[in-house]
Amino acid sequence: MHRRSLVASGAVATVAGALAAPHVANAQPRVTWRCAGSFPKSLDTLYGNQEFICRRVAELTDGNFQIRSFAPGEIVPALQVLDAAGSGTVEVGYTAPYYYVGKDPSMTFGTALPFGLNSRQMWSWLYHAGGRELLAPVWREQGVHGITAGNTGAQMGGWFRREIRTVQDLHGLKFRIGGIAGQIFQKLGAVAQQLGGADIYPALERGVIDGAEWVGPYDDEKLGFQRVARYYYYPGWWEPGPTTEFMVNLRHWESLPPTYQKALEAACAEGYCHLVARYDALNPAALRRLVAAGAELRPFPREVMAAFYRAAQELWAEIGARNPRFKQILEHFERFRADQQAWFRVAEDSFAIAMAQVTQPR
Amino acid sequence: MHRRSLVASGAVATVAGALAAPHVANAQPRVTWRCAGSFPKSLDTLYGNQEFICRRVAELTDGNFQIRSFAPGEIVPALQVLDAAGSGTVEVGYTAPYYYVGKDPSMTFGTALPFGLNSRQMWSWLYHAGGRELLAPVWREQGVHGITAGNTGAQMGGWFRREIRTVQDLHGLKFRIGGIAGQIFQKLGAVAQQLGGADIYPALERGVIDGAEWVGPYDDEKLGFQRVARYYYYPGWWEPGPTTEFMVNLRHWESLPPTYQKALEAACAEGYCHLVARYDALNPAALRRLVAAGAELRPFPREVMAAFYRAAQELWAEIGARNPRFKQILEHFERFRADQQAWFRVAEDSFAIAMAQVTQPR
Repeated sequence: MHRRSLVASGAVATVAGALAAPHVANAQPRVTWRCAGSFPKSLDTLYGNQEFICRRVAELTDGNFQIRSFAPGEIVPALQVLDAAGSGTVEVGYTAPYYYVGKDPSMTFGTALPFGLNSRQMWSWLYHAGGRELLAPVWREQGVHGITAGNTGAQMGGWFRREIRTVQDLHGLKFRIGGIAGQIFQKLGAVAQQLGGADIYPALERGVIDGAEWVGPYDDEKLGFQRVARYYYYPGWWEPGPTTEFMVNLRHWESLPPTYQKALEAACAEGYCHLVARYDALNPAALRRLVAAGAELRPFPREVMAAFYRAAQELWAEIGARNPRFKQILEHFERFRADQQAWFRVAEDSFAIAMAQVTQPR
Repeated sequence: MHRRSLVASGAVATVAGALAAPHVANAQPRVTWRCAGSFPKSLDTLYGNQEFICRRVAELTDGNFQIRSFAPGEIVPALQVLDAAGSGTVEVGYTAPYYYVGKDPSMTFGTALPFGLNSRQMWSWLYHAGGRELLAPVWREQGVHGITAGNTGAQMGGWFRREIRTVQDLHGLKFRIGGIAGQIFQKLGAVAQQLGGADIYPALERGVIDGAEWVGPYDDEKLGFQRVARYYYYPGWWEPGPTTEFMVNLRHWESLPPTYQKALEAACAEGYCHLVARYDALNPAALRRLVAAGAELRPFPREVMAAFYRAAQELWAEIGARNPRFKQILEHFERFRADQQAWFRVAEDSFAIAMAQVTQPR
């Protein structure tokens, strides 16, 4: 309705005016893209964020830049999203860069380094401390331009059929976990296994695996893990602030009008705010329901955490020795993390601790 | 150049195609607004965020929606931004809602409730738990539509000329602090004073006041407080996640094309991500420099924190007794906060604590 009144008021370039040339700049080209995603529709949080960003881009461009959202398997399998975007099979993919550490271990910095940064620190590292500049060549080699587009917040440490009391309890443990964190478990004698979401529950139930990590309470609850592996560990030290990414085919990115590039960037930032906020709104009640259904919360013992940390340091040294770029990014990342730890200890964490003290029942 | 290549590839509607009429919808109206801000240019973080959002809106609309940014005093004094936006003197203001608790104490929920939520939880409460819906009538009565647009992260507890060891040390203490938190200090016998940024240092130097809170290390450093009040306390329990807001004159908001409304919302969300991230990137080094220059870091003693918390609860009961809406929002806010505390203790805080343990020098 407002369009008609605006046209009537002469506030817009008319069709006739467009012919006079300068106002052509006002007309936006019609662009239609396909976005292949790595997260199933059952994860309404993560998949919902893909849909939100695509819808937002359309809204920001008066409907002229349309990105159609696809779930894994609809046009591209979950873990081939980067390849599909890099090769131009789709114009853009929505995924977690660390799925592709097999191609390049530096990909992990785009999602989460074990013992790394929380959700707020990740955005700061990427956008205000040089992280994106360090990662740009990593993406470019894969044929994509990356835009940070979401975060789940710190994840849980996963579900175990037996308690983990000592490092010895990890020996021979068959644990469903992906990527680079699986290598850390292996250093401590565990057997890391990659399994798709749908395969985890039956494997746990039949005892094919002894434990599995997925996301956090809200997502985990849907799969019903508490029925077959009741010890629910925290924290998920391998994913303290896992970040999701829109990966845009380079050629398509470069041919996009700047206004549409900005629309995609703004929508992805908005998605970043909303995804973690939605998890925070949903997780507390889900955690309560899980505990009511029999889940037993357990922190990883301090000694076990220390062993994981040492194993991670070993792994970084090994990867760094054969991959100078990984080493360079790691050094930058770790300097930033040390600064953030010192700062958060003063401002954020001291507040959280004080709150726990003043609000506890007397 | 890219437009030409898109046209050549046939991917866009051509100018000739536009003549067929439906593409008139592509043209965007020219809108020019003025934004009056509450934060001085010397706060390049907070004022910079206002400029970023205004620039981003222009970029998202192909330059058609222009918002010109003004610092305090240029057209409107710092603390009259809400009035100016509400009355239509300016189309939009950028400010902190809690400056206006004198008009309505519920305004404080738009920025920060003492002992409230951190930056991530604030966005979650506002957008995913019903906070915005509760605050909408509060804004509407002031003639504005509010859009959450930034966060500083947890602030510091401020600068004191003498150490605060017991609640008695607060008696007669003249402390520069604004708004509703000042009333909490007064309950413990302190004298709360409102002073503009430029007046704080001389007042501290001459002993007119005994202490002052401002923001955090990066902003505080510019004012040089460590030279005249060396004890730097934390945490800033009255501002654990202070939120800034774009307040749009209601009539102007409603007459804005939906595409421009979305542009403003997206730009504000992006500003939210960037502001706190920029603070996180800048604060650690500033804190180091302050300590090197003689600042002595001190946590508020546990007993003092407990007294502040009790005084806050008293104040909420008093305000709630005469203001049912404040009471209603408070109850909603506190339920959400209790959930967040329980959830963060498991996921986020346990990770921060584990990191402090595993990374400490052996």
